[in-house]
This record gives sequence, structure tokens and C-alpha cells, in this order.
Amino acid sequence: MHIGLVGLGKMGANMRERMRRAGIEVTGFDRNPEVTDVPTLEALVQALPAGERVVWVMVPAGEVTDAVVTDLAGLLAPGDLVIDGGNSYYQDDAGHAALLAEHGVGFVDAGVSGGVWGLENGYGLMVGGAPDDVARAMPVFDALRPEGERADGFVHAGPVGAGHYAKMVHNGIEYGLMQAYAEGYELLAAKDLVTDVQATMRAWSKGTVVRSWLLDLLVQALEQDPAFTEIDDWVEDSGEGRWTVDEAIELAVPAPVIAASLFARFSSRQGESPAMKAVAALRQQFGGHAVRAAGADTVTPAAPPTSEA
Amino acid sequence: MHIGLVGLGKMGANMRERMRRAGIEVTGFDRNPEVTDVPTLEALVQALPAGERVVWVMVPAGEVTDAVVTDLAGLLAPGDLVIDGGNSYYQDDAGHAALLAEHGVGFVDAGVSGGVWGLENGYGLMVGGAPDDVARAMPVFDALRPEGERADGFVHAGPVGAGHYAKMVHNGIEYGLMQAYAEGYELLAAKDLVTDVQATMRAWSKGTVVRSWLLDLLVQALEQDPAFTEIDDWVEDSGEGRWTVDEAIELAVPAPVIAASLFARFSSRQGESPAMKAVAALRQQFGGHAVRAAGADTVTPAAPPTSEA
Amino acid sequence: MHIGLVGLGKMGANMRERMRRAGIEVTGFDRNPEVTDVPTLEALVQALPAGERVVWVMVPAGEVTDAVVTDLAGLLAPGDLVIDGGNSYYQDDAGHAALLAEHGVGFVDAGVSGGVWGLENGYGLMVGGAPDDVARAMPVFDALRPEGERADGFVHAGPVGAGHYAKMVHNGIEYGLMQAYAEGYELLAAKDLVTDVQATMRAWSKGTVVRSWLLDLLVQALEQDPAFTEIDDWVEDSGEGRWTVDEAIELAVPAPVIAASLFARFSSRQGESPAMKAVAALRQQFGGHAVRAAGADTVTPAAPPTSEA
Amino acid sequence: MHIGLVGLGKMGANMRERMRRAGIEVTGFDRNPEVTDVPTLEALVQALPAGERVVWVMVPAGEVTDAVVTDLAGLLAPGDLVIDGGNSYYQDDAGHAALLAEHGVGFVDAGVSGGVWGLENGYGLMVGGAPDDVARAMPVFDALRPEGERADGFVHAGPVGAGHYAKMVHNGIEYGLMQAYAEGYELLAAKDLVTDVQATMRAWSKGTVVRSWLLDLLVQALEQDPAFTEIDDWVEDSGEGRWTVDEAIELAVPAPVIAASLFARFSSRQGESPAMKAVAALRQQFGGHAVRAAGADTVTPAAPPTSEA
Repeated sequence: MHIGLVGLGKMGANMRERMRRAGIEVTGFDRNPEVTDVPTLEALVQALPAGERVVWVMVPAGEVTDAVVTDLAGLLAPGDLVIDGGNSYYQDDAGHAALLAEHGVGFVDAGVSGGVWGLENGYGLMVGGAPDDVARAMPVFDALRPEGERADGFVHAGPVGAGHYAKMVHNGIEYGLMQAYAEGYELLAAKDLVTDVQATMRAWSKGTVVRSWLLDLLVQALEQDPAFTEIDDWVEDSGEGRWTVDEAIELAVPAPVIAASLFARFSSRQGESPAMKAVAALRQQFGGHAVRAAGADTVTPAAPPTSEA
Repeated sequence: MHIGLVGLGKMGANMRERMRRAGIEVTGFDRNPEVTDVPTLEALVQALPAGERVVWVMVPAGEVTDAVVTDLAGLLAPGDLVIDGGNSYYQDDAGHAALLAEHGVGFVDAGVSGGVWGLENGYGLMVGGAPDDVARAMPVFDALRPEGERADGFVHAGPVGAGHYAKMVHNGIEYGLMQAYAEGYELLAAKDLVTDVQATMRAWSKGTVVRSWLLDLLVQALEQDPAFTEIDDWVEDSGEGRWTVDEAIELAVPAPVIAASLFARFSSRQGESPAMKAVAALRQQFGGHAVRAAGADTVTPAAPPTSEA
Repeated sequence: MHIGLVGLGKMGANMRERMRRAGIEVTGFDRNPEVTDVPTLEALVQALPAGERVVWVMVPAGEVTDAVVTDLAGLLAPGDLVIDGGNSYYQDDAGHAALLAEHGVGFVDAGVSGGVWGLENGYGLMVGGAPDDVARAMPVFDALRPEGERADGFVHAGPVGAGHYAKMVHNGIEYGLMQAYAEGYELLAAKDLVTDVQATMRAWSKGTVVRSWLLDLLVQALEQDPAFTEIDDWVEDSGEGRWTVDEAIELAVPAPVIAASLFARFSSRQGESPAMKAVAALRQQFGGHAVRAAGADTVTPAAPPTSEA
Repeated sequence: MHIGLVGLGKMGANMRERMRRAGIEVTGFDRNPEVTDVPTLEALVQALPAGERVVWVMVPAGEVTDAVVTDLAGLLAPGDLVIDGGNSYYQDDAGHAALLAEHGVGFVDAGVSGGVWGLENGYGLMVGGAPDDVARAMPVFDALRPEGERADGFVHAGPVGAGHYAKMVHNGIEYGLMQAYAEGYELLAAKDLVTDVQATMRAWSKGTVVRSWLLDLLVQALEQDPAFTEIDDWVEDSGEGRWTVDEAIELAVPAPVIAASLFARFSSRQGESPAMKAVAALRQQFGGHAVRAAGADTVTPAAPPTSEA
């Protein structure tokens, strides 16, 4: 099989490599001349057999994906197929599918999980689309997914959009899992009683209820930097976490853990919290409570300390 | 009526003043010679009629209150009465009552709300104790509570402990209310569309569903410092908020809002969050995501940015 | 002044009455022939002076408001003004304003708070729009707002959209306040120590930090039904709460309290929780923990109980 | 090696079996005559060599453990060692250790994770105690822990109490992980777009970021009962989750995810929520909003529906 791959960033380049190792011919295109196989998107399209082309798009979600899909709609021929493997918002898939359908081109959305480890371990795949389109791309999915039973690393989750929806939920769960481990880590680190936090978390690696790949990674990170002195507490969030909470609200599904995990990231990026300034101001108003002047290192109560009024 | 008042801090001094204005004779004792009426606790006790004494204790909860109650147990006579008006943990009340009962001395716990405004507005009072003990102290409660119907500012909430329990819950609610206003404030302040945050919140003062005394205080604080530039986002918490969540756990009562308000205060006091360092470390491990080196102002991704894996 | 009012439901009818009491001439239209003043929207428009008309729209947000605004755009003349006083999503305001602007008609969005009590107490008003448009409608705003200083019940919060944005945040805060009181109520009700929950909350009415109009309403509700035996724990949510959390996510503002309040409402409407079934299933898988069969009243452990594994 | 094991419930019996398979001689005692090896605790003690005895206690935490430890203190000899492998509260360990120390008996607390799967997979172990005591029991720990590197399934976490503290935090994390998966499950199940929830979650088993043992169990549970029709949404909680949140409060560590997970369990067990009744009552008071009469299946608004006031 011979496929086209648009986008050779960290994820795309690894995926090209994994597909090639599995015997799939891959023509890759990237704006970066150092990594691309062909000079232009047109050249990529021409390198593939018309009417049978499969082009995997692996570029940032949103505007970049929109632009690539639009370009491909103008270049591809009826019978061709586009797979969006990026972290696109699932509600954008229908528009992409409709645009391509105007040109007789099929569309499959693929949620891809695995990060930098996917090259060796394989990528978990969740795809949405018409059964025929999914079937055509099956060799690609089999090359990318982890070895073993197909069902353990691949699912045809439903029609167009279902793949990215599943990936969105996957990432929402991921937020919650990470925050749970992080809170546990802090509870161990805050307690003198525990003499070695890294060793304690490592002992959970086998046999325990909380064992997981994320735990293994956290243990590894603690091995490299036992007190996280080299890392800031500033955590970015990507679209999927936000979309998951938006979806929970849309569906009236209570999602306190995922939402709390998202808010913790927001807080981590605030130099100072306007809300907590407001709370501090309120306490000062009603109780004459000590507040800390902006920029101060110490607290100067305006009066002898009292308790909450 | 003539009562003794131990503790003439911010709250105690104001309460002495309010009682005196209401015609109650008050002998106050404080370790601070500048504010005390008598040189010692013994002198305070001797100034009151044995067997009819009412001594109001208004000192910090915990060890200080324990010490004062213990001292009073040794000084008072059968028939006397102690009222603990501090923010004591309700579970400590039974011990204080038992200790005093050994000497024939009664005990009433009184939750007092009102802060620095209580002198003029009166204090909301929630008391626990035996009916006879509460009845004896009623003139004091009537002097301290706001004017108007007694039931709007005073309650005999139950036996010993009920007053402080009610006060604890009152303060738990207070945490939630303050956080709700604070989140709303931040949502207004974060939006360019709203041209005057202070004016907007002030317009809620009358007629709206969210009008309250806390809102009035927040509007006043914003008037003094419209962007809270003079105040740090560092918020202390007192025992009551913690006890309320502990109690919710003990009673299996879901209390997500009060707990979230408490945790927001904890977060406000952390220079950096160990938990969020752990999350950042995890993201770096699995996705090669950009992290911020400790102390850095900018983010240097180790590789071209990718989305959450 | 003579204005048109479209929508004479519970809110609209009361507002008509309050405006009339203030000496404003009001022509109201509603599909319900029992309450309408004129038979058609056209008749309402014709009853007002062209080029000077002010039409207040007070109908359900979303499709109904869209339809009324569209109809008015076709009927009104340059120089006229439409005020949307419903709970419209603030992002819809720009579209309405643009549509009306095509016909030379001005637009003001007005957030209105006060519920059924507004007739007597006045309504808190937050409006967005061009200064001239707001100025023209000022007599109406003055009639509707509570008596006293204008700034305590009215704000021109910014350009088009700012009024509904402020109302949205107001309602988000309202969710948090209600949930805080509700958690506190449950903590009082769950504790035998407190002998009279209603009396305890009533005692917070004056002097305390938590005093508010919502507290007064809760005390009143408890007076009517002290254990809430007549009411179900099923709580609807309106758009504003959802929009507030969506906005918090969009702005990266942590809003744990408002989100928790929203999720509590979602939970209240679930006959059973799919998520908690999943947790129960998990516990059964790893620990052989007792689960409750669907529909069962009692718990049958599959094996002698053990603790969490 | 020959050890005594008190408590042969589900966990204890499996542990006895695993130790025996590893060549350790085990004398077990349980009140249940069908499973016990000896008729009395005295007989168990006599079966072991005085001064070298190691007795593993595996009974319910709290009063039962207190009683067994007290009995053992009276029966054992100087030089003997007691290991508490139950889910005891870590703050109880010091008392048990002190009581035994009066008799010259050593004490080690051991957190044990693995549930019913531990027999085959081994148990994750976290222990606290003096180095000599831990060293003496090492053959037992090696028999119980999973195969492979010791550090992946065993840790000497610190002095007495550290083992149970680590286990407590482990279980707190477990609460968060389970709730995160459960919220994700509900988001998949609530969406028509996803045609097979079980297959979707199964596809996360390999390669993805969220892969874990708990995920495997959830997939297995869904295989057995794809829509959880046979299981109730009623989830018990054990002491560890509560203690973890209590500890977070004590240490001022924000733990929003673990707390939310605990509260979700509380909610799952409430036939009806007093708090949400209070919210419903409030909405009725201020807005005339529709409420649902207790026991009703449908909602009867008291007036035409209006939006949140």
C-alpha cells in the first residue's frame, strides 16, 4: 500500500517511520524542507494513484487542518480518501466530510493516542466514517496500532465525527487521571512521614489498583527529578479538555473531576488570581482580616488577628 | 445586669461597647493592660456576684480558650455561667461543659457573626446549651443581637455544641458565597465587553437575586481599589471552613461548593503547586510537551508543539 | 412616554404593570388573547409613533426571540429602538443588532433580575448598547429599576452584548450562592444536635455575614415546608448557568464553584447515574465489593465485606 | 519461615494461599471454623516459636483490629512482631505500636493493594516500621508482592504509620481514577454518535495514554453487562477516601479531584438530596419556577415557564 502523509512534525514523522517499518510506502509532505519527501502538496497527490489515494492529514487542529483539507479537496479525485488524524474538534468533521464529498472524496476522522512513545508501542486509534472508507484504510490502521489483538488498540467508533469524539473523551479522562495522581503525589510529598516519595509511587507499579502507564511515567519523571525542582507548575491545556467539559454541559452530564482538572490547569497559569483577590478584599471588609499587600512577602494584619467573622 | 468579658481584641472590645450602650455593666479582662478593666482574671471574677456570675469568653479558639475555661473552672462558684463566644470547634464544647459542670458552673456556646460591623449593626447569635442557662443570659444576647425581631438575629439552636455547630456551618456557607461572587467578579474583569466592573456589580445591589451584604462589601472594596491592585491574592482560612468539610465527610453530605472554596484558598497560598508540577512533568514524559523551566518567564518547547497525545 | 412590550408572560405582565404605575404608557402584545392589548405585532407597531418607537421584547431566549426580532426588523422604521429584555445569550446580541441596523433600528440588550418580586421591589437592570440608545430608553429603565439611587439597580455595562453578559454572570453567581446555602442547609438538617433548622437559618437574617435576599427566601420556604417534604430534589437549569461555565472555559477562568453548582443540578435530574454504575462495576471487578443489583433495596455482597483494595 | 495470619476473609485466605505457594508455612486463625487452621488465637500463638513470631493481622480496620492487637499484646513475647495488613487509619498505628512495645513486641504497618486479583498477580505493598522489623518480615513481603523487581511492588515507606499513609493516598488516587473513567464512560454512553461504547473503551487498552489496569477491568465489566443494566448506581465508600480528604485539609493541599470523587459517591447513595430540594425551593420562591412535587413523575409549573430570574 502507498499512502500520502501531510504533516511531519513530531507525531507525523514518527508515524511515517512506523508505517514504513510495517512495509507501507509513505510519501510525506511538510513545509519544512528538511523533513519532507516531496516539495509540494500537489507533488504528494501526483505521487499517488488517482481514485485510490489515501492521504493522512496530521497537522494542528483548526485553521491549519481546515486549509489542508480545502487544498486537498481541490487536488484529489473521486474515489480518493482523506483521513484527519489530528486533534480536530469532532464537530468540525462533518464540514470537512461535506466539502470533500462535493469532490467525490471520502473522509475518515481518526483519534490517535500514544505521544512520542507511539513509534515503538503503536498508537491507540479511534476512527469514524463510512464502513467502506474505514475498510480501505485498514492496512494503515493495522500498521499504526499496537501489536496484538486489533480490538485492543483500534475501534471503528461510529460515523464521521465518532473518532474525534472518542479521542476528545479519552483526553478528558486523561486530564482527570493526571490530576488524581498529582494530588496523590502532593499528599505524599507534603508528609514528613513518607521518607521517599519516588520509591513509594514506584511500589505501586505492579499489583496495585492504581497501576497504569501514566503512573510508570510519573515514576520515571520522579527518578529524573525527585522533587520536580527543574520544572515549573505551569500547565498548558489543549482543546480536548475544554471541549470535553463543554460537551458535558451540552449533554447535562456531571463531570466534576474532568472540570476540576481543567480549572487546576487554568489556575496554574495565573500569576495571580483575580478571584482570590476579591475574596481577600471581602475578608478585609467584613472582618478587618489580615491581607497581604500586593507584592509583599509577609502579612501585616491591620489589627490583632481574629477568626472568620 | 453585670457580666464579665474575657478577651478584648477587635471583636471583644466592640462587644463590650455594644453591651454598655445597651445598659449592661461589663467588666472586661485582657492581657493587654491598655484595654483591660481589671488587672487579672481573679479580679474579674471577684467583681461579679458569686453564684450569679455570667462570664463571656471571647478569645482565640483552641488552646487559649481551653486555658481560660480551665482557669475559670477553678475560680467560679456553683451557679455561675460561662459563655464561649469564640469560634471554638463544636466538638470541644462538651469537654468544656463537663469541666465546668464539675464545679457546678453552667456552659453555653455562642456562635457570633458580624465582624467589625457588629458594633453598629448587632451580631447574629447562635447559641447552644440548657434552656435555663440560655434564659439567664438572654439580656446579654438581646443587647448584642441586631435590633428588630429576636428570631431574625438569635437562635437557641440546641444543646451544648449546637451554637458553634451552627456558626461553623454559617462560615462554610460564607466561604461558598464569597467564592461565587469572586468567580463572577473574575468573569466580568476578564471580559473587555464590560466597561466598568464596579458599576456592574453595584447595579446588583437592589432588586436582583444576588443582592446581599457580602455583595455590598465587594462593591465597596471595588470602589476603594477598582482593580484590586493594592491587595494580594493570598487568602487565609480559619478553622470553620475546614471543620465544615470534615463534617460533610463525616455525615456523608456532598459539599462540592464549600470544599472547592476551601481548596481555592489553599491554592492561593501556594507559591507553586507540587501537583501541577507533577502534571507538567507527566505531559513532558508522554508527549514531549513544552514545559516551563522553574523560574523561567517563557516557555521553551523541546520540540515543535503538538497537541495533547 | 409610550412604549411597546412584546411578551406578557409572568415577567412581562408584571413589568407592564410596574411601568404603568410609573406613568409610562404601555401597549403590550402577546399571543395569548386574554392578556394582550392589541391583536397583532403590527397593531403594536402602529400604535407607536414611527421613528421614535421603543419596543421592549420579553419573550423566551433563542428561537422565539430570533423570530420576534426578525419580525420587528420588517415592521419598524429608521430611528426606532428594540430592547431585548429576555435571557438571550450575549453572543446572539450582535446578530440581532446587525439585523435591526440594516433597517436603521437601534438595539439595546437588557439583563433583568428580580423574578416575581420585581413588580413591587423593582428589577435590577444591566444594559448594553450605544449611549444614545440607552439614553432614549432611560425613562423606562428608571421605571423598572428599584427606587433609590440609580446606580444601585441599573448599569450601562458596555456596548451591545454587555447587558446580557452581565446578566449571565449574575446568574452564574446565583447558582453558586444557592448551592452554598443548600449545602449548609443539608449540614444543619443532617445533624441531630441542631433542633430547629428553620429557626437557625432565620437567625442569620440580620447581623451575620451570610445575610441576603436569597437567605430570606430560603427561610420563608422552610417556614412553609420545614423539611421540604412537598418538593422534589429535581432542579432545572437555564441557559445562563451553562453559558457562564462555557465562558469560564473560553476565558481560562477557574470557576469551580459555579461549575459544581451546575453539575449538582445535572445530577439532581438523573434517575440513576451511568458514571456511578461504572464506579460500582469497577469496585466489583477488583475487589469483589458488594454492589446493589439494579432495582434492589438491599445490598448483597458477593462475599464477606472487605475494604477498598 | 513460619508465620501466623489472623483473619481469613476474602483477602486473608488468598494471602495465605499465596504465601503457602511461595513455601512459607502459615498458621491461620479466623472465627469462622470452616476456614481456620487453629481453634483460637492462643493456639495460633503457641504454634509459632516464641521471640521469633511474626503475626500478620488481616481483619477489618478500627474496633476489630484494635481488639486483635490488644489480644496479641497479651499473648506474644518480647522479640515477636505484629504486622497490621488491614486498611487501618495511619494515625492509629502509633497507638498499636506503643501498646505492643510495652510487651517488647515490634510492629509494622502494611498497606496492601490488589484485591481479589492479588492471589495470582501479587499484592502491591507499602510498609512502615523500624528497619529491623521490616527486614525480619522481608520473606513474607517477597512472597506476597508481585514477581519481578522488588521495588516495583514493595516499599519501606518510612517509620510506623508510613505504610498505611501511603495506602490511604493510593486509595484516594484510586477514587479519582475511577471517577475520571466513569465520567468518560458516561460521556460516550450519552452520545448517539458512538455506536459501541465497550469497543471504544477497549480500543484504549494498548498504546493510549489512558491505558491502565482499571481500564482493563472496566472493559471487562462492560463486556459482561454492556449497559450496566444489572448494577445499581449506589457506591459505597471506605475510610481511605474520607481520610485522604481529611488529610488534604489538614495539610492545606488542594485535592479537588479526590474530593469530587468522594462526594459523587455520597450523592450516589442519597435517595433524594436535601440540598437540591433547598435549591428547588429557592427557585420556586424567587421565580415561580416549575418544581416537581415529591413523588411526582412529571413537572407541573405553577405558571408559564420563565427563565432563571
